[in-house]
Amino acid sequence: MPNDTLPNHTPPDDKSPDCGPNCGGPRVRAIPPGEDRERLMCPDCGYIAYQNPLIVVGAVATWEDGRILLCRRAIEPRKGYWTLPAGYMEERESTREGAAREAWEEARARIDIDHLLAIYDIPRISQVQMIFRARLLSPDVEPGPESLEVGLFEWKDIPWAELAFPTVIWALREHHERLGRSDCAPALNPTPDALARWEKML
Amino acid sequence: MPNDTLPNHTPPDDKSPDCGPNCGGPRVRAIPPGEDRERLMCPDCGYIAYQNPLIVVGAVATWEDGRILLCRRAIEPRKGYWTLPAGYMEERESTREGAAREAWEEARARIDIDHLLAIYDIPRISQVQMIFRARLLSPDVEPGPESLEVGLFEWKDIPWAELAFPTVIWALREHHERLGRSDCAPALNPTPDALARWEKML
Repeated sequence: MPNDTLPNHTPPDDKSPDCGPNCGGPRVRAIPPGEDRERLMCPDCGYIAYQNPLIVVGAVATWEDGRILLCRRAIEPRKGYWTLPAGYMEERESTREGAAREAWEEARARIDIDHLLAIYDIPRISQVQMIFRARLLSPDVEPGPESLEVGLFEWKDIPWAELAFPTVIWALREHHERLGRSDCAPALNPTPDALARWEKML
Repeated sequence: MPNDTLPNHTPPDDKSPDCGPNCGGPRVRAIPPGEDRERLMCPDCGYIAYQNPLIVVGAVATWEDGRILLCRRAIEPRKGYWTLPAGYMEERESTREGAAREAWEEARARIDIDHLLAIYDIPRISQVQMIFRARLLSPDVEPGPESLEVGLFEWKDIPWAELAFPTVIWALREHHERLGRSDCAPALNPTPDALARWEKML
């Protein structure tokens, strides 16, 4: 668990994903010494190009009256559909800082992150999504560069048929079922039972 | 929140971190169109080499009598020190699958993952650590290639002065304080108060 120094597997400090200046680049799939699975390697210098899962951070952010912030996507995938403010975590920030940054970037929303609402594993695309609950510090929001429009939605007005991704539906449902609760374990990917129950509600 | 298709920022499907075959590789720091921070880019083809935080998954795994699995590191950093079974999450696995895999790789331990004990943000090195609680399915463990030795430790016998990383201490303390509890929010990085309280216990 290398957390106190740079891990022994990362690229050199210059963060170049490339290897040596005279190398042909990582282009061969091979099992590195001491490992048990194939990696993309440079046969000239032995550099290993690790591929890792990505973290998506986001928030169900509500105003005092319970209305929920949603953003209509200006970019693919799922351009034109509604989503929670969320996106890829950046280096050298915390998960909470990342969720707050995304709310600002996508909706010019200042939010106060509360607790972790849900963690969704999406192994098919190697993503882990961490969705927080948050309070909007002001109801004044406006579209950032990745949003066509943004808005605060009462529960009954949520555009369920126009939500961009399954995890948006999941997080909104969990938020609604947990109203008034905070000190509980984050939700995980919903069970088939939960999905069936939610389906009936639509 | 692109979770239903490949995100629009990832390398092409061949997973090469390199760009085009006739390019000089990502070697220029510049702000890509539509973004607001510098990335390492290839000036020949415009390929963007994103750098992202890494997820570490691990477990506080206990046998029926409460003894805790620890591994003595055979590799740097902190070679010779004791740690929890943990390591980098791989692509196309869930966080829980990753934690179980690490227990097998480092201690030949078969574990049944229970709930999420703690999430630690380490922005300085761009890591997010997710530590689960788990049950050992057998007390028979042995060192994997990254461990010098492995063992099951009663609480009073934990080698506190020889633990590899702060997060190992944190996770062990949280595990101990939460004995008998399971449906609670995962612990976060400890507050200064918690650190001071734990310090007194040593």
